[in-house]
Amino acid sequence: MLQSIKDSPLYRIMHPRSIVLCGASNSVSSMGTVLLLSLQSLGFEGPIYPVHPREKQVFGLTAYQSVLELPEVPDMAILVVPTQVAAQTLEECGQKGIRHAIVVTAGFKEVGGRGPEMEKELTAVADRYGISFLGPNCIGVTNPYHKLNTTFMEYENPPGFIGMASQSGSFVTQMFNYLKPFSLGFSAAFSVGNEARIDIVDCMAYLGACPHTRVIGLYIEGIKRGREFVETARCISPVKPIVALYVGGSEAGRRAGYSHTGALAGPDRLYDGIFRQAGVIRARSVTELFDFCWALGSLPMPKGNRLIIQTHSGGPGAVAADSCGRSGIDMPPLSRKTADRLRPHVPHTASIQNPVDLTFMKNPVEYLGNILKVLLEDESADMLLVYLLIVPKIAEQMMQELGFPQDKIPGEIQKFNESLSESVATLLKTHGKPIMGYTFRSLDEGVIQYLIARGIPVFPGHERAAAAMAAMVKYVRLREKILSSAGVANK
Amino acid sequence: MLQSIKDSPLYRIMHPRSIVLCGASNSVSSMGTVLLLSLQSLGFEGPIYPVHPREKQVFGLTAYQSVLELPEVPDMAILVVPTQVAAQTLEECGQKGIRHAIVVTAGFKEVGGRGPEMEKELTAVADRYGISFLGPNCIGVTNPYHKLNTTFMEYENPPGFIGMASQSGSFVTQMFNYLKPFSLGFSAAFSVGNEARIDIVDCMAYLGACPHTRVIGLYIEGIKRGREFVETARCISPVKPIVALYVGGSEAGRRAGYSHTGALAGPDRLYDGIFRQAGVIRARSVTELFDFCWALGSLPMPKGNRLIIQTHSGGPGAVAADSCGRSGIDMPPLSRKTADRLRPHVPHTASIQNPVDLTFMKNPVEYLGNILKVLLEDESADMLLVYLLIVPKIAEQMMQELGFPQDKIPGEIQKFNESLSESVATLLKTHGKPIMGYTFRSLDEGVIQYLIARGIPVFPGHERAAAAMAAMVKYVRLREKILSSAGVANK
Repeated sequence: MLQSIKDSPLYRIMHPRSIVLCGASNSVSSMGTVLLLSLQSLGFEGPIYPVHPREKQVFGLTAYQSVLELPEVPDMAILVVPTQVAAQTLEECGQKGIRHAIVVTAGFKEVGGRGPEMEKELTAVADRYGISFLGPNCIGVTNPYHKLNTTFMEYENPPGFIGMASQSGSFVTQMFNYLKPFSLGFSAAFSVGNEARIDIVDCMAYLGACPHTRVIGLYIEGIKRGREFVETARCISPVKPIVALYVGGSEAGRRAGYSHTGALAGPDRLYDGIFRQAGVIRARSVTELFDFCWALGSLPMPKGNRLIIQTHSGGPGAVAADSCGRSGIDMPPLSRKTADRLRPHVPHTASIQNPVDLTFMKNPVEYLGNILKVLLEDESADMLLVYLLIVPKIAEQMMQELGFPQDKIPGEIQKFNESLSESVATLLKTHGKPIMGYTFRSLDEGVIQYLIARGIPVFPGHERAAAAMAAMVKYVRLREKILSSAGVANK
Repeated sequence: MLQSIKDSPLYRIMHPRSIVLCGASNSVSSMGTVLLLSLQSLGFEGPIYPVHPREKQVFGLTAYQSVLELPEVPDMAILVVPTQVAAQTLEECGQKGIRHAIVVTAGFKEVGGRGPEMEKELTAVADRYGISFLGPNCIGVTNPYHKLNTTFMEYENPPGFIGMASQSGSFVTQMFNYLKPFSLGFSAAFSVGNEARIDIVDCMAYLGACPHTRVIGLYIEGIKRGREFVETARCISPVKPIVALYVGGSEAGRRAGYSHTGALAGPDRLYDGIFRQAGVIRARSVTELFDFCWALGSLPMPKGNRLIIQTHSGGPGAVAADSCGRSGIDMPPLSRKTADRLRPHVPHTASIQNPVDLTFMKNPVEYLGNILKVLLEDESADMLLVYLLIVPKIAEQMMQELGFPQDKIPGEIQKFNESLSESVATLLKTHGKPIMGYTFRSLDEGVIQYLIARGIPVFPGHERAAAAMAAMVKYVRLREKILSSAGVANK
């Protein structure tokens, strides 16, 4: 395990002070140019040197005919050049003294024909000069904390806590937009491409040491260095959860992965074994991958497997109970003490069971405040799942009934939502038990965005919340196993 | 099986020409009043008579002290009165000559104590006068085609094709908003409450005969008349798919359901058997329930189990292949003929396998037109799944490059999306094979809303699309079984 990201060959790739971009031109339809615009749009602060065989200027920047002509030795080179000239270009980078690179250029091992041979030429050059490089056939990296985005899509999110390493560039770039409604972002993200030298294990080691990364997400079509994967993950996972989506375990997924990246996949059972040893939580879909990252990266870990559901609608409570039950989560009855303490706060129609069904209770100050507090204090509960049905129109009506003038209402609702979500966040901190929401409405509505902003995940649908809770329980158990087998006392 | 909905006791409940609302007042916080406002807001066209012990006028309508004083015999009564006076109120309805009712009032069998006894009194009155009634303890019905909504939430959607019968009112009312992003709506929806007389089997029979209903959704905590359920469903399911979410099969779901509606649930295996015999597709979550309804109600049925995935990103193709494989769907290689026909249309980097990965192909006219057509004509494919990554910004850039002035661009993009989705809809019709999309972006974007409007479901995430495709395959197989055991030639 790395003591510091500065010990990683990826450090300078993620923190370049200056970049040479080989293959940028003035045509917006060329990939190199799109990357240049991405770099500029996230506001990269160091100098960027475009290299192009003919252009003198590229989007306002002085362009150079060759890397050898650059006025300084940049920290990193990005290669978006034709396959045939990639090795030669890297050779010039080496001569210039550049020791870090991202090779975006494709057409190597993954296409067959002359491809594998050209890839060997490329790695030979890199080895000769001691160049650490990501790729080829990758879409690069994103490090929003360093205002660095070398991919072809705009990074739209705030810097976040999910560290991603992916054998498909799509699960970096196409997730920028996907993560937005959840107010999530990447701490650092890698597309590893053909992994000719730097591979997913190196990226995982980097993310393990990255101070902004609270949870690691992996997209895997096939792992080359199995033993190193397990050893590295096993060091990281007890302190930082790792979630992996592995698609090579089904016949259809294996074939698709092979034709995509030439990955050599193994059967599900083999990978399940690897993940278990490594303390890695397996996700079955892109949705689960990021749901699990959200929960594991935001919430305190549950001490056990027992969950209370709070709802004000019977049906939504029952479907969540069903999903939790199927996910292996226990739903114990409330303690008598809890039931007695709840009674004064709930209507007589309420069902003081588990799920706690508050029925027609309209006051969120009660059900996101006092009631939540009583439930969190129940010693038989390790986790809390809350159904959220807060219709914006109803909040508006409440304010009208309270006599607020129409023009003050939006401001009052905002203040109300802020204080409501603040009190939930305080309960989360005080009690150290995970609290999650689920809803069938848009995440944009009412108090939900406020809760999300304060670190309380709210999932669209009961089954996603139940799966995320189950992933947390699984993580805690895997962690215990690894720590106890390593002779470390459980914290 | 009903020949016509007019033969159902529910017909007049769903098509009242006039309504008496017992329990409406001028206080907006009373449930009866909220129902009155719902009725008015959807624009119910017949007279509504509020009955209230003291008020003379209720929201601009003449109010009556008693049902007996009404100037005509309304087609239907809605009771939102205190539990203690419910039987007496229904008695007066009977005396007046009213033969249809919805009893929203709760506090009967579901609460214990005097509740079951009062429920018996209520049904005794109904039986004496021959009143067909839904409930008690239900939230009523929605029939957007008749501008009828007796629930406490506003119906926000266009009239649709999903017929819903639910043992929880939430899965009627709370789905109004949920279905919006999918441009779906109900054809008719019932909350059955305690099912004292009319039960979920009666509702299913109605929906089987309802001409606006193309697919039936059920939310079940426990079925009372098992044999009738199977017989009725078995008649309907070969012509109209039925999807059921049953939560009583897990211990947690069973307990939650029991405390919610007092339903007597059975183990999963029992219900799986019932559903299989009845030709009912089982959903595992609310998400699946409506996803399956969407696909089954929109698309032609697949002739077999073989699917082609079209993508322009390797990773999203691989995860979809994995999900399809795990859902039991075959992904055969393309025929040689198809591969030969595709080649002129795709870039040299494309992977002409299954998934078909078009890689960097920017022109949607190709991949939602010519290429889709070639794939649909492949005789080894029964279904088509298309990855949609259409970034609005990129469409805008394309238009700029084509030289359109800025102010014309939004209009041009709209025209473009319309013609694009129109051509997909035409292919759907011509080939009779189901086509579905999946995306990680918002469904509000670009061409997606246009595709959805033309009956092509686009799912958020590969796993949901794969599950929906698998549900269609399962439906076709169940239908075949039922038809062949009934000696009916397969159509």
